[in-house]
Amino acid sequence: MLSRKDNDMLTQVGPGTPMGELFRRFWLPALLEEELPEPDGAPVRLRLLGEDLVAFRDTSGRVGLVDAYCAHRRAGLYYGRNEENGLRCVYHGWKFDVEGRCVDMPSEPHETNYKDRVRLTAYPTAIRGGVVWAYMGPKGTEGPLPEFEWSELPAAQRTATKRLQRCNWAQAVEGGIDSSHISFLHSRREGTDSGPRNPYHQSDRHPVFEVSESEAGLVIAARRNAEPGHYYWRVTQFLLPFYTMIPPVGAFKESSREPYDGHAWVPIDDHTTWTWSFSASPARPYSDQERETRGGRNGFWGPVDEAYLPLLSADNDYGIDREKQRHDNFTGITGIPNQDAAVQESMGAVVDRSKENLGHSDRGIVNFRRLMLRLAKALAAGEVPEAARRGDLYRVRSASVVLPAEVPVETGAAGLLKAAPAAADR
Amino acid sequence: MLSRKDNDMLTQVGPGTPMGELFRRFWLPALLEEELPEPDGAPVRLRLLGEDLVAFRDTSGRVGLVDAYCAHRRAGLYYGRNEENGLRCVYHGWKFDVEGRCVDMPSEPHETNYKDRVRLTAYPTAIRGGVVWAYMGPKGTEGPLPEFEWSELPAAQRTATKRLQRCNWAQAVEGGIDSSHISFLHSRREGTDSGPRNPYHQSDRHPVFEVSESEAGLVIAARRNAEPGHYYWRVTQFLLPFYTMIPPVGAFKESSREPYDGHAWVPIDDHTTWTWSFSASPARPYSDQERETRGGRNGFWGPVDEAYLPLLSADNDYGIDREKQRHDNFTGITGIPNQDAAVQESMGAVVDRSKENLGHSDRGIVNFRRLMLRLAKALAAGEVPEAARRGDLYRVRSASVVLPAEVPVETGAAGLLKAAPAAADR
Amino acid sequence: MLSRKDNDMLTQVGPGTPMGELFRRFWLPALLEEELPEPDGAPVRLRLLGEDLVAFRDTSGRVGLVDAYCAHRRAGLYYGRNEENGLRCVYHGWKFDVEGRCVDMPSEPHETNYKDRVRLTAYPTAIRGGVVWAYMGPKGTEGPLPEFEWSELPAAQRTATKRLQRCNWAQAVEGGIDSSHISFLHSRREGTDSGPRNPYHQSDRHPVFEVSESEAGLVIAARRNAEPGHYYWRVTQFLLPFYTMIPPVGAFKESSREPYDGHAWVPIDDHTTWTWSFSASPARPYSDQERETRGGRNGFWGPVDEAYLPLLSADNDYGIDREKQRHDNFTGITGIPNQDAAVQESMGAVVDRSKENLGHSDRGIVNFRRLMLRLAKALAAGEVPEAARRGDLYRVRSASVVLPAEVPVETGAAGLLKAAPAAADR
Repeated sequence: MLSRKDNDMLTQVGPGTPMGELFRRFWLPALLEEELPEPDGAPVRLRLLGEDLVAFRDTSGRVGLVDAYCAHRRAGLYYGRNEENGLRCVYHGWKFDVEGRCVDMPSEPHETNYKDRVRLTAYPTAIRGGVVWAYMGPKGTEGPLPEFEWSELPAAQRTATKRLQRCNWAQAVEGGIDSSHISFLHSRREGTDSGPRNPYHQSDRHPVFEVSESEAGLVIAARRNAEPGHYYWRVTQFLLPFYTMIPPVGAFKESSREPYDGHAWVPIDDHTTWTWSFSASPARPYSDQERETRGGRNGFWGPVDEAYLPLLSADNDYGIDREKQRHDNFTGITGIPNQDAAVQESMGAVVDRSKENLGHSDRGIVNFRRLMLRLAKALAAGEVPEAARRGDLYRVRSASVVLPAEVPVETGAAGLLKAAPAAADR
Repeated sequence: MLSRKDNDMLTQVGPGTPMGELFRRFWLPALLEEELPEPDGAPVRLRLLGEDLVAFRDTSGRVGLVDAYCAHRRAGLYYGRNEENGLRCVYHGWKFDVEGRCVDMPSEPHETNYKDRVRLTAYPTAIRGGVVWAYMGPKGTEGPLPEFEWSELPAAQRTATKRLQRCNWAQAVEGGIDSSHISFLHSRREGTDSGPRNPYHQSDRHPVFEVSESEAGLVIAARRNAEPGHYYWRVTQFLLPFYTMIPPVGAFKESSREPYDGHAWVPIDDHTTWTWSFSASPARPYSDQERETRGGRNGFWGPVDEAYLPLLSADNDYGIDREKQRHDNFTGITGIPNQDAAVQESMGAVVDRSKENLGHSDRGIVNFRRLMLRLAKALAAGEVPEAARRGDLYRVRSASVVLPAEVPVETGAAGLLKAAPAAADR
Repeated sequence: MLSRKDNDMLTQVGPGTPMGELFRRFWLPALLEEELPEPDGAPVRLRLLGEDLVAFRDTSGRVGLVDAYCAHRRAGLYYGRNEENGLRCVYHGWKFDVEGRCVDMPSEPHETNYKDRVRLTAYPTAIRGGVVWAYMGPKGTEGPLPEFEWSELPAAQRTATKRLQRCNWAQAVEGGIDSSHISFLHSRREGTDSGPRNPYHQSDRHPVFEVSESEAGLVIAARRNAEPGHYYWRVTQFLLPFYTMIPPVGAFKESSREPYDGHAWVPIDDHTTWTWSFSASPARPYSDQERETRGGRNGFWGPVDEAYLPLLSADNDYGIDREKQRHDNFTGITGIPNQDAAVQESMGAVVDRSKENLGHSDRGIVNFRRLMLRLAKALAAGEVPEAARRGDLYRVRSASVVLPAEVPVETGAAGLLKAAPAAADR
């Protein structure tokens, strides 16, 4: 449990909040590249960390991410004209480039240099791995992009998609790093739903946790009994400030080349979150069907509508089917991400952590909260997290592995937790 | 009129408020029994006195009424599995029985006794008269159920139903004890609408009120002129904390065996209320048509939808028909309960009682407010109302009677105001 | 830009606010006369300056404008019976005349004189020019109605209509007095949309402003280059407290007899506004088509629904068509009023004026704010604005005129800025 004060600090992300400032020191997934497909196309509205923004791809293909409101009289720039390397407000024609410079001010007398003194808030952007990234921190403080394996693979070997979630980012992350719930929330009868099942999740539902800090976050290892003399380890990486990497479902004895998935839980504001899903196929291109399953609007992460809003939501009780709950799976809800959203949103927009009763299986969550609060306070005292300055720290994977009981997980899983060198895959 | 401070005290029902605490000393109608028809059926969400709750009927048929959120990490228990005498959270499988005990905690190590130390808020329940009752007061302080005549009759001789009302409980009660408005709000031209009309309500629209406290609330007698030398008395019982009994429309000279109705106005929160309607037929089973008229979704209290929400509401101006208002009835709205809801909701969710101008005809209302405020303050000082401890005080009826002018109503109506002994009707 | 404190003062209109009190010293357009077509018709709900009201036309044709809630127990008078020169509450039959006097109190004993002591808040009304006007200031302080030319013409020579706008009144006014934006927001390719285009708006998009106070508000003159040695002047009148007169699109060398339009931006509350549009045809009756174009629900000001709500709104991005924006007009939105609503509403309900960057072309707006804040403060100190006492100050027009460069606009446009004597047109 957390005090209400700590809960506020953990969950509030607006400008000037400690956690909001911490987020602003990292590059953030802002949009799918597919949302800004062409130069001079329609601007896109978005909201990140409680700020209303507009994105546009200019004539030269650069992506601008600017204040949603014109610097002049605050008209909405979403209605603006995206033309000739700038976004022009339709109210009085003021025009801004991707860096927020006012490049035209046709309503003012020719002789003034007023336009040179007007700036629109603009955040640096970058495109990598099919994602538009944004940096909302103090000017000039941005470090390198995180070097996720998926973000460096060719387009045929990666996917990225997103879905709106109606709760605070932290309770979404806490679902992502919670190795315990998979024995329950996602459990199902053999032969129901699609995809492989992991027998250890059912045979041992009392995992023992070992949690340690890594250079970029946390390594959360959940130990379950496997064959005699062996443990099954499920090792989840949490990466600053909001990434989780999903361990593969199967158990692997050596460095895997199979596709795997990860998430980012990007705060829209204190009450809503974009749930990003990424995947990497290190060894080979995805088949069309794999791609549709991972990234399509009716795939694994779906169903979602054109705006990436989930069709199953609290409004329709996530499609819960009580007969199915009785006979086929634990929840009666179809699809792992829908099951996750149901429980995470069911807590309310911001769960009251002062009323929790945490157990041993929540150790990863406890460590996550401590880490985030500590880093937020440290930043307020002037200390920038190392991970914000080093993209290479993100060259990691999560892992599932069966090890002899006497082998420590940090030894036995070490190789699996590193991403393949990017160069070799290119 | 009330000061704003007293108005707040009268209307606020959340945990820790004086009026909320007073309500918590009484058994409350929580659900219709028909909403929890079978063991291990789907849980039901409800909100009472500002608290979010989940009800379930367990394998043994017992009804649990518990906190809407799991004691572990606050996932919504509505999505839970109702199985083997407990409600199991789908997030990590923690399971709670109807008394809130954690009876299974499968995500934690076998060797802990943590589950024995975890409790979920749970309120005692009881089933009587087709109603699930709840007691939300301090543990162990519950008294007997109120012994309403309708609640002790065989199922064939009683009905119970409910409807959502979008205003505070107190302005609903104030409609229920207001004998004056029936000469206006519910008046209509002979031959319009259904049901009998009472001629005295039209011939004398200036009732004179006599209000006295009873052991369980108030007796509110409204006197109208009848035949020479006679008065028509309409005597309404208000019973703590929110019950009203409707006097029969006709005038009766002796203890009646005819069906009659009553209400409970149960606070969902400060802004919404369940309007319960009960009826008793002391002498004989209801016909199918009588039952449909009283309890059906398109009967007297309807139309309501499957969730007991009214189809006529502020959204459609309660179906007001200005032509009908001009020619047929006083409001142009069809159905007494819809007329009541229209005026009560039209005041806003919580009427500003500091702006009222009360008259003689509001004496019942003035006494009701004084009584409730006095009892709420007394409870805060440690004094529990007698009625919370004595179910027998609810063995009463309201009455309509014509008496010679010289007969005091407390004498002349005394017999009518008592319910028939329950045993005799069984 | 404004400080947040000044922004609050400028935009807040409820009872007791400085700007709200200033508005209350002027007659306000409250309803279209067509909304109260017949004696004893259905009452009409409205909200003005943050107050909920009900209007009704009584048996004698007088218009009452009263508190939305009965003086007795605050039931909504909208459901009331409009009969025999008064509005009768359906709860207990209390009846009020257009002046708020309680003229019948049938639920109270005959012998009381209670009804003589009960008053319902009622505001004086007047009908002129197809508009129901209301005065919400202190009792007895009302001055004459403003003598707008359109309000004094025969019905065949005037129109009046309205439309809901979802933003504060001040940012709507600021659009109305902003001569600069027409070169951008409303610009379009020749031959697109309907109506004439003014060539000077396109040839010179850097107007130079001259702003002066008039007896009833501001005269805002925007100068653009015309033929050699000439200026094109667009002179907009702002009239207290919220009127704007639209200069004709064409340029006129002498007093015009052509139809022209004006607006009132009447605050519903701090976040919504009725945008009124008036027009006057000084010389001749409108044709049916002209009337439909000006006043019809699908005309120039439309489309609006039966309740005067716009069908193009933020919900559908005002029907923006990006192809049309690229090729046909500046916005991709059809219709000048829809273009105005889009930018004004896009700022949010109340624009944050502390974040603006104003330029030379905003001089009219700066003066408007200063004037309104000064007058609001002066009223708080006891000084009532002169314009509230003199209807004749409203006998003015706006103007468009081309003048030799050496002729000052105050001289050259003087004749155009006066309305024709009302008598002559009748």
